[in-house]
This record gives sequence, structure tokens and C-alpha cells, in this order.
Amino acid sequence: MMILGIDPGIAILGYGIVEYKGNQFKAIEFGAIYTDAKDSMPLRLEKIYHGLEKIIDKYRPDAVAIEELFFNKNTKTALLVGHARGVAILAAAHKGIRIYEYTPLQVKQGVVGYGRADKKQIQMMTKTLLNLKTTPKPDDVADALAVAICHAHSGVFEGLFKIR
Amino acid sequence: MMILGIDPGIAILGYGIVEYKGNQFKAIEFGAIYTDAKDSMPLRLEKIYHGLEKIIDKYRPDAVAIEELFFNKNTKTALLVGHARGVAILAAAHKGIRIYEYTPLQVKQGVVGYGRADKKQIQMMTKTLLNLKTTPKPDDVADALAVAICHAHSGVFEGLFKIR
Repeated sequence: MMILGIDPGIAILGYGIVEYKGNQFKAIEFGAIYTDAKDSMPLRLEKIYHGLEKIIDKYRPDAVAIEELFFNKNTKTALLVGHARGVAILAAAHKGIRIYEYTPLQVKQGVVGYGRADKKQIQMMTKTLLNLKTTPKPDDVADALAVAICHAHSGVFEGLFKIR
Repeated sequence: MMILGIDPGIAILGYGIVEYKGNQFKAIEFGAIYTDAKDSMPLRLEKIYHGLEKIIDKYRPDAVAIEELFFNKNTKTALLVGHARGVAILAAAHKGIRIYEYTPLQVKQGVVGYGRADKKQIQMMTKTLLNLKTTPKPDDVADALAVAICHAHSGVFEGLFKIR
């Protein structure tokens, strides 16, 4: 199965297309959609939407995996990231792709195997499972790949929310 | 000119189509898009997107006016509202409509004439300007109409952010 992992953000949205076949992972494509703070919000959201649209059209993933986000304090950041995350979900929904969300704890368990893993351990395991020479940068890309792996490992191909 | 005012929310999104001609206002259509908390997020966002798409196609507004939001504490609410607001902005952007955002202070000044107006005064003035018998309910609808009036009164038909 082909999985698109997404780590949403308004300035940097990480994505990773991961193929999972016979217990083996393959990183097909990964990268980030960058938007400029000098651009208007509509323009930035369109860039995110159309960027994801292109990736989905190219690879036709079976599922989209996206992290559930938590913010401690900054409501302004939460609102902004919400814009990007909403548009990312819509892009997948419009293409009829099922969307699954995972908490940070689930990603840790799904990638490293236990919930107390730190960021470095997740990145190391992501790199190893995908057979990459270096950890993809920026972190948003590595995080997107991690949530895609988490989905493959979840076994449950019925997620927390799905569209149809 | 025809203005679409939007008060974004994930459970209730208020909207109002207002015509402004020769210093006179006319409320063409107003209401709310409701989404069910029991539905998945993709489904809720699609409902908002397609609901707005329909309204925009029907009335071809010259501009969309939307309130800039501030949250004091609740990051979870901010994130959720962000999803809805992002999708609403995208719906307008995809139709090539210019989008203008106004702070709560600007809405007060634009509708009532001074920045210390309270919610009741704004609703009263909105009702009067639009020649309505009662204040539209829920508040989200009245707020959407108010931000549309604010845009008409702003005189500046160049907003804080625009797409093209």
C-alpha cells in the first residue's frame, strides 16, 4: 500500500510518500511545501492545497496519515496551523483518499515501539526502516514519514476518522 | 457591490450576502452551515467548503469579508476554528474572490462607528442597516452580516490580504 504522511504547518508542510509491501518500506518521495510569510493567507493556503493535490494525483496513495496536534499555550500558532491542517485534510478528502490521524503517542508506539521514545529515536528508526542514508530535513519531513510508517504499522486500516 | 461576510466556526459557520448600492444595504441571503460533531473532520470540512462554494456560485460576490480571530486561552478551539477558517478562505480563493479580513475592533468601528461598541449595539445597528425585523440568529449569522457591512463601510476596497 501507498501512504502519504503529512506534518502540517503554515510555513512548512512536510510530506512523505511511503510504500509498504511485504513488511518492507520504501520512501518514494518526500519533501516540504514552503509558503512565504510575506504572501497572503489565501495564496499560502492555495499553495498548500495545490501542492498536495499534485502529490496525490501523482502517487494515488491508499491512505493519508496525519498527526493529531496539541498546543500548550500559543493560540495564535494553533489557529494558523489549523488553517494549514484543514486545507490539507480537504485536499485529501476531495481526492477521495481516506484520512487517518494519530496522536504523538501513537506515532512513537507505531514507529519505535514504545511511547516514551524521543524525537531522535523516532528519526533514527524512520531512517533505518526507510533505508535512508541521512535523516530527512527539515524535521517536518521526517515527522511526515514517521506518521506514514505509524499508519502502516497500525495494522488497523480503519482509522480514527475517515471520509467514506 | 455584493459582499459575502463569513463568521467561521467548525460547528456553525455564519454567512451573509449583503448588497451595497448607493449607500443602501440589502440583505440578500443569510444563514449558517452546520456540521455535526459526530461526523469526521474531513466530512465536516467538505460540508463547509461545498456549502460556501454553492453560495459563491449563486451570488458571485465581489468580495469576501471575514473576521480576524483572537483566542485567549483555548488552543484546542483555536486549532479547530483554524481548520474551518482555512477551508472557508480556500473556497473563496478557488473562486477567485478577493478576501478581506477585519479585526473585531475594525468591525465595531465599521458598523457602529466606534470601537467600544458592545455585541448588542452591533447587532442592533446591523438589523437597522439591513432593514430586518429581528436580529438574525444564531449570533454567528449576525456576526457574518456585520463583517460584510464593515467591509462596505471601510471604503477601502483594498483589504489587508488579497489573493490576486
